[in-house]
Amino acid sequence: MTDAVKENNIEGLKDLIQKKDDVAIIGLLTPLHPSDIAKLFANLEEEEKIYIFSLLDPTVASNVLLEVDEPTREKLIASISKAELTEIVDEMATDDAADVIAELPHEEAKTVLEGIGWEESAEVQKLLKYPEDTAGGIMQTELVMINEDATIQETIEQVRTKSEEISNIHNVFIVTEDTRLVGIVPLEKLILARPHLPVKDIMNPEPIKVLVDTDQEEVARIFQKYDIVTVPVVDAGGRLLGRITIDDVMDVIEEEIFEDFYKMASLNTDERVLDPAARSLKLRFPWLLVNLATAFLAASVVKVFENTIQTVVTLAVFMPVVAGMGGNAATQTITVVVRGLALGELELKYAKKVLIKEVMVGFANGALNGIVAAIAAYLLGVNYMIGVLLFLAMIANLVIAGFSGTIIPLILKWYKSDPALSATVFVTTCTDVGGFFSFLGLAALFLKYGLLS
Amino acid sequence: MTDAVKENNIEGLKDLIQKKDDVAIIGLLTPLHPSDIAKLFANLEEEEKIYIFSLLDPTVASNVLLEVDEPTREKLIASISKAELTEIVDEMATDDAADVIAELPHEEAKTVLEGIGWEESAEVQKLLKYPEDTAGGIMQTELVMINEDATIQETIEQVRTKSEEISNIHNVFIVTEDTRLVGIVPLEKLILARPHLPVKDIMNPEPIKVLVDTDQEEVARIFQKYDIVTVPVVDAGGRLLGRITIDDVMDVIEEEIFEDFYKMASLNTDERVLDPAARSLKLRFPWLLVNLATAFLAASVVKVFENTIQTVVTLAVFMPVVAGMGGNAATQTITVVVRGLALGELELKYAKKVLIKEVMVGFANGALNGIVAAIAAYLLGVNYMIGVLLFLAMIANLVIAGFSGTIIPLILKWYKSDPALSATVFVTTCTDVGGFFSFLGLAALFLKYGLLS
Repeated sequence: MTDAVKENNIEGLKDLIQKKDDVAIIGLLTPLHPSDIAKLFANLEEEEKIYIFSLLDPTVASNVLLEVDEPTREKLIASISKAELTEIVDEMATDDAADVIAELPHEEAKTVLEGIGWEESAEVQKLLKYPEDTAGGIMQTELVMINEDATIQETIEQVRTKSEEISNIHNVFIVTEDTRLVGIVPLEKLILARPHLPVKDIMNPEPIKVLVDTDQEEVARIFQKYDIVTVPVVDAGGRLLGRITIDDVMDVIEEEIFEDFYKMASLNTDERVLDPAARSLKLRFPWLLVNLATAFLAASVVKVFENTIQTVVTLAVFMPVVAGMGGNAATQTITVVVRGLALGELELKYAKKVLIKEVMVGFANGALNGIVAAIAAYLLGVNYMIGVLLFLAMIANLVIAGFSGTIIPLILKWYKSDPALSATVFVTTCTDVGGFFSFLGLAALFLKYGLLS
Repeated sequence: MTDAVKENNIEGLKDLIQKKDDVAIIGLLTPLHPSDIAKLFANLEEEEKIYIFSLLDPTVASNVLLEVDEPTREKLIASISKAELTEIVDEMATDDAADVIAELPHEEAKTVLEGIGWEESAEVQKLLKYPEDTAGGIMQTELVMINEDATIQETIEQVRTKSEEISNIHNVFIVTEDTRLVGIVPLEKLILARPHLPVKDIMNPEPIKVLVDTDQEEVARIFQKYDIVTVPVVDAGGRLLGRITIDDVMDVIEEEIFEDFYKMASLNTDERVLDPAARSLKLRFPWLLVNLATAFLAASVVKVFENTIQTVVTLAVFMPVVAGMGGNAATQTITVVVRGLALGELELKYAKKVLIKEVMVGFANGALNGIVAAIAAYLLGVNYMIGVLLFLAMIANLVIAGFSGTIIPLILKWYKSDPALSATVFVTTCTDVGGFFSFLGLAALFLKYGLLS
């Protein structure tokens, strides 16, 4: 029902492309939403996409272009003339136009900017100046605003005039002579009020608004907190510059969460699953090199105890168990802490409480898993003192995991750095070093006092 | 600017609570948005929260109750009488009322359901029957609908009547005599049309809609795809049951992404950072036990090569380096693949392409890091043949990481299971076993042929 695109349509469509039956193709695509056409593209060959794209009228083409993935967008743009591209960009809202133009080579961008209407071009060029991840970078300049002295009838007229070029109006913004924002009127209030009254009488005089340099993540939080669908963007002087609609914010929320987890996994946030191998290699290699350095640090701890391992070689068998369990427990703690910080559930004043809790959970989980590991080792016929070592080292390492898994993201947050950024690398270094040191160190002590042989 | 709650307000508020100066407290809170009052609560003691909550009028109290975290909500609900709770729930939209009532003990839920209006109670009871994670579970029954034969003037009258009890109207739903949905009219169209025309003339006759049993994640995707702010929910017969607004969907998106990463980190999706230690212990222990079992599996591989390690004890030093690098590379691959699957970028038909790519990236990263590791080991004065072993085993294990990190999430997806669920456990088992086996196995071969001593 929600999927207008059916599998059998695609085979039919491919046939029609082969036959170059343009009339039938257009007939098939016309009832579809641009998002559905974009989805359909995923099942077509490159030449087929380009062929269909050339048949779309500029309005539909502009929407399709915004919905397809980036590699496809690049290819479609490359397939059309500058004049056609200009026509398509002209159909877009200023924020989308700015996004597309920002991706073009300099010369081409200039041509398109010269080709679209003078007014839109000026707006787009203004938008291009704001950093991508701020309110200014995601806002659009299309909105309905009216002077504070207007009547409701005049306001409705303004909505009528603007409704042809602007979609999702939702609100009218009320401004002073010098465009300072003084209020907001939602459309439903406009419908219900008496036409001759001043619009000031029905406006919300203290609307939620954001400054143009507000971080986009903060903008997203404001949408969530106040359950609004659009927010005005103002400069430091309170002048209205644009508005952000909720559809732009949804993508921001998704993007920001994935970024946290990408950073936790030592990944560059720009990497995508369909990137070519060379790009993935280039982006991942530096992080793996960092990990290699920390692995050598852990290895140097083992090196200290070479003689101990030489004496009781079974230690080498169980050594990775302790380190591995520490790494796993640490990942659990970091994930919970990073999520709490991202959602604002974990404020710094709870730091001590969470730290104590995580150490306690680490201790208890260490003891429980340590007992299981000791019994399992004993049943496998290993010297029972190795079981005791496993038990003690597991407790020590899971406490280290709980402590470092909490404190390291918090410290990174405290210093305004990103709590997810490389937390995992630091923490697993702690658990590797801690795991090897506690297990092998205790073994050396046991050996020294004749408890192990 | 967006934060109406300032730090100095909190101390003043605490003072006023001490003095029981109710008039001043109400004066301080009245200009605040309920979300800001809820945020303020995070800085107050439990008794202070309860005191302030008792002063709020039911409309504000109901909004605050929906915005505070779950433990606070439970305490606030426990602090008031059933009559007061009934009054507060009565103020809520049906979807929020259903969520609150679902959390109450059976007896209390019954009392509240009997106390709120007969009509709302019937609606809430209907909502309680739908599974929590479906369209039915997140929809509200408050909406503006009108018969298809109505005029635009009558439709505006209907909006006027309903606007007192319903917020965020956005659209009017046009239905047949037996409530089958036939169209949608956005409010802006309503403003601009001639009042005497039939509403049918201006409606969108093919609105996006969802079936009541659609999964909430699918609902969220539809909002994102079509950039809409509200969607009607219908039964199999096409009858209008309710509507979902975008604010409910934003929470769903956030929740679903975090769930993926929770599962990847072997965490129960219900765990929260401020949970008590006993709960975290109970939720995490089973997953660590699974990890312990896989760690023993890896240990058993090392056990096979005990004699090899006895002969060349330095192997024990570098063994964890190979396994650790494999684990890290595997986490990179899984994270990229799970993200691609979650966003729909990675479809199963690309499986082969991604698999080949990840194996290639694994090979290249293995070779590069292997060279660095070999040189580092040599510089540390280790037998150069150990460096050769490190190089070869690193390539083998990073290829294993790329292969298993791609194929395991894909297989889980293929079998309609959750690609994030325990993928990490399976994959790191592969890299641990693979790492130890390749490094120690090659060492045993080298020893046998006199290449290592």
